[in-house]
Amino acid sequence: MMADVMMSSSADTEARPPRTAAILLIGNELLSGKVQDENARFLVHELRALGVTVGRIEVIPDVAADITESVRVLSRRFDLVFSSGGVGPTHDDLTLPAVGAAFEMGMARNPELEMLLRAAFGAHLHERDLRMADIPEGARLEYGPDNSPRPDGPAAPSSRPWPVVVVRNVWVLPGVPSIFRRKFELVRELFRDQPIHARVVYSRAGEGPIADALDAVVAEFPSVEIGSYPHLDAADYKVKLTLDGRDREAVDAATRRLVERLGTAVVRTE
Amino acid sequence: MMADVMMSSSADTEARPPRTAAILLIGNELLSGKVQDENARFLVHELRALGVTVGRIEVIPDVAADITESVRVLSRRFDLVFSSGGVGPTHDDLTLPAVGAAFEMGMARNPELEMLLRAAFGAHLHERDLRMADIPEGARLEYGPDNSPRPDGPAAPSSRPWPVVVVRNVWVLPGVPSIFRRKFELVRELFRDQPIHARVVYSRAGEGPIADALDAVVAEFPSVEIGSYPHLDAADYKVKLTLDGRDREAVDAATRRLVERLGTAVVRTE
Repeated sequence: MMADVMMSSSADTEARPPRTAAILLIGNELLSGKVQDENARFLVHELRALGVTVGRIEVIPDVAADITESVRVLSRRFDLVFSSGGVGPTHDDLTLPAVGAAFEMGMARNPELEMLLRAAFGAHLHERDLRMADIPEGARLEYGPDNSPRPDGPAAPSSRPWPVVVVRNVWVLPGVPSIFRRKFELVRELFRDQPIHARVVYSRAGEGPIADALDAVVAEFPSVEIGSYPHLDAADYKVKLTLDGRDREAVDAATRRLVERLGTAVVRTE
Repeated sequence: MMADVMMSSSADTEARPPRTAAILLIGNELLSGKVQDENARFLVHELRALGVTVGRIEVIPDVAADITESVRVLSRRFDLVFSSGGVGPTHDDLTLPAVGAAFEMGMARNPELEMLLRAAFGAHLHERDLRMADIPEGARLEYGPDNSPRPDGPAAPSSRPWPVVVVRNVWVLPGVPSIFRRKFELVRELFRDQPIHARVVYSRAGEGPIADALDAVVAEFPSVEIGSYPHLDAADYKVKLTLDGRDREAVDAATRRLVERLGTAVVRTE
């Protein structure tokens, strides 16, 4: 049973390495502590469940040059970049032009977004709201795996989902958590990758005494990521050891080897 | 009364610009969602209350090259860098050598830390625990504003506070939240700066209709940082507008001007 799972999983592995992602949170309010981040917290769990490894999170202010610089660096280094924040109609909403600038793209009003905005706001539409239809030239609109409803499609405009603006590999999401989630959920299946297998071993011995055993297992199983986390307040253990990897067999073998080496220090495994 | 406060505050301003800080969180567990960050959350509030502006937060994996690169960039760009995590005795504790590498410093065993470790662990000390006494050559130990107890001082070793390792402008703190807090609290008064004054205006009109008024106030008061945050679920308003600055008089004047311009859209101010 496990071997079957492994075989299909290995076939996927050989086809393409798993994707890496960065999360870019844009907003002074996160750096001043006025607002508590909910979006990175949500997204790391989603991406982990999808099998995408998050390699970096950056929180930066509403400053166009900072956004452009981070996007330039992160978009080169990671397969996927998800930005959050700075996409409304006010002076501190600088994300889309700044993302465009990272790729030397100018801005242009997108007719599909303009139509959606007019349909959504109706008589309440303010001229400034239309700025939200201005996106980098070369950006695309993504509606998720069920394909893109077009302006001339059958659905009424009000029932159409709101698309995600994508500039190269940068997925531009809004800062308001409920909208961030709704938009990510629309496109989430586009990112599904090989699952990450995870095991946990609890040790009643502290980090110092188990460090040599850990080193040996780390060296023996290079495909398994092993973490060591002291928990000062835990009732029955001192250190939580985590073992993660794409290769389920390797993760299980590394867990067995670690349990062997720790001997009586093991409280339990999960 | 307010003028008096302003005068002393202005005198401070002229002496030295307020300091900026970056927070560097190190740990795979934060990127996989296994552990929820508590340290940046705590630190942004502390630094805000102290009057230090946080300009960036980065969350990076337990990879020495990533740590070195981030430290190099952040330590040049910000007055203060606070790192969290990666300072224990196991294979994934890479922070101190990586911070040293950012400044081309080798590692050396620090006698004062070795003594503190021996006193703290007693008979339970494991050889590997002594690695926590290895710090970059050129690093210093900080005990906070009450000065540094020395090994030959009067206090018993067990009653001595644990110092913070500082490498140039990088304050190296541990990842375990209770210890992170205790260590930061030891040194926090070293960072006290001019306070940041904050006001809030709540608008019943949405972001589109108030954007022009906001632009005008932003342009008129360049020393005041103005943020606009739509709240979809709020009962009596649509947008929360925040006004922050070191110059209390300018913040208050900008708030009055904004209230004037928004007219009947204002629900209340704080």
